[in-house]
Amino acid sequence: MPRFGLHRFLPALQWLREYPRDSFADDLTAGIITAVLLIPQGMAYAILAGLPAEVGLYASIVPPIVYALFGTSRALSVGPVSVAALLVASTLGATGLTPDDPAYLQAALLLAALSGAILLIMALLRLGMLVNFLSHPVLSGFTTGAAILIIISQIQNLTGVPLPSAGSSLDMLAHAWRHGSEFHLLTAVMGLASILILLWLRGPFPRLLVHLGLSERAAVLISRAGPLALVAGATILVWALSLQQQGVAIVGAIPSGLPAPTLSFLDAQRAIDLLPAAVMISLIGYVESVSVAKVLAHRRRQKIDPNRELSALGFSNLAAAFSGSMPVAGGFSRSMVNFSAGARTQLAAIITALLVAVAAFLFTPLFHHLPKTALAAIIIVAVVPLIDWRTAVNTYRYDRSEALALLATVAGVLVLDIEQGLLIGLAVSIGVFLWRSSRPHTAIVGRVPGTQHFRNVQRHQVETWPELLLLRVDRSLYFANVSHVEDTVAEAVAQQPGLRHLVLICSAVNTIDHSALEALEQLAESLKEAGVTVHLAEVKGPVMDRLRQTRLFEHLEPGQVFLSTEEAVAKLTSRET
Amino acid sequence: MPRFGLHRFLPALQWLREYPRDSFADDLTAGIITAVLLIPQGMAYAILAGLPAEVGLYASIVPPIVYALFGTSRALSVGPVSVAALLVASTLGATGLTPDDPAYLQAALLLAALSGAILLIMALLRLGMLVNFLSHPVLSGFTTGAAILIIISQIQNLTGVPLPSAGSSLDMLAHAWRHGSEFHLLTAVMGLASILILLWLRGPFPRLLVHLGLSERAAVLISRAGPLALVAGATILVWALSLQQQGVAIVGAIPSGLPAPTLSFLDAQRAIDLLPAAVMISLIGYVESVSVAKVLAHRRRQKIDPNRELSALGFSNLAAAFSGSMPVAGGFSRSMVNFSAGARTQLAAIITALLVAVAAFLFTPLFHHLPKTALAAIIIVAVVPLIDWRTAVNTYRYDRSEALALLATVAGVLVLDIEQGLLIGLAVSIGVFLWRSSRPHTAIVGRVPGTQHFRNVQRHQVETWPELLLLRVDRSLYFANVSHVEDTVAEAVAQQPGLRHLVLICSAVNTIDHSALEALEQLAESLKEAGVTVHLAEVKGPVMDRLRQTRLFEHLEPGQVFLSTEEAVAKLTSRET
Repeated sequence: MPRFGLHRFLPALQWLREYPRDSFADDLTAGIITAVLLIPQGMAYAILAGLPAEVGLYASIVPPIVYALFGTSRALSVGPVSVAALLVASTLGATGLTPDDPAYLQAALLLAALSGAILLIMALLRLGMLVNFLSHPVLSGFTTGAAILIIISQIQNLTGVPLPSAGSSLDMLAHAWRHGSEFHLLTAVMGLASILILLWLRGPFPRLLVHLGLSERAAVLISRAGPLALVAGATILVWALSLQQQGVAIVGAIPSGLPAPTLSFLDAQRAIDLLPAAVMISLIGYVESVSVAKVLAHRRRQKIDPNRELSALGFSNLAAAFSGSMPVAGGFSRSMVNFSAGARTQLAAIITALLVAVAAFLFTPLFHHLPKTALAAIIIVAVVPLIDWRTAVNTYRYDRSEALALLATVAGVLVLDIEQGLLIGLAVSIGVFLWRSSRPHTAIVGRVPGTQHFRNVQRHQVETWPELLLLRVDRSLYFANVSHVEDTVAEAVAQQPGLRHLVLICSAVNTIDHSALEALEQLAESLKEAGVTVHLAEVKGPVMDRLRQTRLFEHLEPGQVFLSTEEAVAKLTSRET
Repeated sequence: MPRFGLHRFLPALQWLREYPRDSFADDLTAGIITAVLLIPQGMAYAILAGLPAEVGLYASIVPPIVYALFGTSRALSVGPVSVAALLVASTLGATGLTPDDPAYLQAALLLAALSGAILLIMALLRLGMLVNFLSHPVLSGFTTGAAILIIISQIQNLTGVPLPSAGSSLDMLAHAWRHGSEFHLLTAVMGLASILILLWLRGPFPRLLVHLGLSERAAVLISRAGPLALVAGATILVWALSLQQQGVAIVGAIPSGLPAPTLSFLDAQRAIDLLPAAVMISLIGYVESVSVAKVLAHRRRQKIDPNRELSALGFSNLAAAFSGSMPVAGGFSRSMVNFSAGARTQLAAIITALLVAVAAFLFTPLFHHLPKTALAAIIIVAVVPLIDWRTAVNTYRYDRSEALALLATVAGVLVLDIEQGLLIGLAVSIGVFLWRSSRPHTAIVGRVPGTQHFRNVQRHQVETWPELLLLRVDRSLYFANVSHVEDTVAEAVAQQPGLRHLVLICSAVNTIDHSALEALEQLAESLKEAGVTVHLAEVKGPVMDRLRQTRLFEHLEPGQVFLSTEEAVAKLTSRET
């Protein structure tokens, strides 16, 4: 594998060159199956974002092809995703734009362009690591909260009860409650029936097929066409009975054709206003994409490169904007479908994109009578599995502070808004981590009689000495935890009046920052005045190398650095024995 | 020592009961010397805060007596301090109040009351640990920046060139530059002479006394009276020559008497406006007080209780407000003087307070002709040692990222304002810590031939096995660093095609948070699909206890947990040997 050159920038060249012929059948199958899923899903997510349905199709054509060229994941399916669609809707709702306004679509394109630019800048600065600071509980809480918010946002399409264009989930529910009289029975019945049909197509139907003699794999693959079958059935029903005249909202005219390149969305003032939301969309999209790409890569012993994923997603989002579509990311469930349908390379994604292009070019008139309530049903069935009770329960059992971060995120997303929810979760999880790291474990140890082992005096019957104190520090020392160690030392020194030597056992100390270094120097000097000499023992090599460049050892003087605790005990108690 | 009862709330009862008669002479000497230092210093810090001079005296009477009753430090000298005075001036300047306005003094009292309330609330919530998150470099940068700001703020008193009532140090310098024509030569000459005299009294003068036969201790103690001598000399000079008629600014009439209890400052709306500044004043005051109290306690093998310090300082600040004075804290240099003059208990502080009270009651008319330029000189000479180049240089040599935090703090304090500077430093230092902890050290290890020792393959000639990978993780695993470990594993697995067993050596892992746990589970499952079994080795007891409550071991299955790396190697390579 060449380490430099074009392959480094276009990972596609590598899999294309190595492309094994027997993979093509797999990629073709996966490409078709994912397309069948993506066509209704793309339109649904566009509607969720408040955009015309064709924008979701456009987002499924050029961006995944661009990702296929630049991305390092072989099975990631890039295109419209539910959480990004929700973020677009909440951002543009908050600016006061309504979906009828032509500026609404322009602003959505601008969000995609800004997200692309932000991801590329992060790639240049190699900031991919930043997203590691989102802990799993916070991400889980965020996804759960977003899924609930998405479901609430579909009340209007599903039942006809109107929702406000902006506001928290509580605002939406209150608004819907006040307008309960606008409930449209036929729409709601169709929506509910769609949900039940989708659930049946996903669960009992493939089992029925297996019962009828199909292989399990074939049965599952056929059931993937469920959403498309529902769309076809619901459209035919509305068309045949003219249900739109009964008040069932339909998608309406979708222009045929492919997206035309555009730059009309560029607007400097609006770009500044949308920047914070674009940061959020790009970060969330990146986290979702990389999480699923990692899982899929592990399963085939492949490896993704987080920084190249940043640039691939950045280019995809720029391509989304220039081809007239909404922000894109690697979708979790769709990538899983693509992978389990057998996708070997990004050729599958290219096949999917070409099929969606054919649909956008030829078949959009067929979707004219598609009822919005069926699309709402598709969205709801797609996001319900994102409500992640299990992680919440497991986290609570394992660690209540992390569960607090999760709950704070869910509550923040639902009560305030989606962005503040994430920031609250981030703050709580980092706060909990900092708080814990500021209280390192320390133990006063003594010698297990007759051995060279040293154990905690509180848990074991061990030998101790009136003139000697052995304190083991179980963590690297830094500014926020060194005063905890100082306090422990002060406590111990105050309680042992005959003390003359304090040995800090540093076997678990990987680093000592400058604050901790100064604190140690000061501690050594003050204890010296009080007649206690501070020594170190079991200092690790790299730590010792750095300490040698400082004046710590002068401050310790006559304190020493012992290689082992045993040696310290032997030297420091010899005068008494 | 009784563990409960009144002693717990009034530490003073303990030292009073145990009071050794031979300590009284020491406490008396220290009390007198500190009073001689405090009288001019208190007036100077009041002027720095933009307040009448007597407010500094009042702050040196009741608050230190209250601290003496509740505080756990024996030598801390509580009263007006320079940084808190600067914060009062900058806060009130920013609200648009001017020192001539009676509301200015009321607002200063309110700041003291709010700071007291905040400290008491922190004590109730046991939040004393919070201040540990201010690293030494950030504190050093903050003190340096504040000292420079204080010196700049004295330009007006020292030279007559006017300063704006609010703004950054750059604004002040620009304003002074534009008003350079108002430079008052006589004032500046007196100010500069005062600075030189103070420096002489501090340095060469005690050496001269020693030369003349005095003991070193006596010489140093006498030199402490330098500021008071200067005040006396300058006052007599101005009075004798009527220099105030030449344009030398004087302190003017200082009302005689003791502070009267007051509650007139209470104002709910203003309290809300001043709250953020009060939080800053109380935190900074607490950090300064506890830092010096800790150092002094160590030297005599005593111990302070950070949470009781919070409440003692809280009560002192409430007392400050109710007795008509500015916010107080434990001053660094003054406490050092008190300690080195021999203070054994807070009786010294009570003696100091009584002497200041006598001065405030009887001698204030004597200060009428005191020139403000002499007080400016006292302030400048007091704060110059706070400019801490040495810490900056040492930090830079030891760790550039920490030096960056220090510099960012200094720059923030000088260019923006004192509060934003501190917040910037805090953010940088915590960011650096988080960033580092997110990139834990890991090492692929192999066996040193013929031994049971395992070392880094990159540094040592060691035995490795094609089907087995040993990865040592050198840090606790948590959300921000687990993906670094995942990446390392993915890299290693991709490069070793014959791999069948991965052993994670956890000897340095003290905790595993829920995100890391989930990541390990997922890693184990994905690698299982790729034909690699994940095992653990050398898991610490407490970590093992927690992992047993989870389903990790089911996910590892058939992976095992080995007590030692040697055991893992023996079992996992046995089929091949």
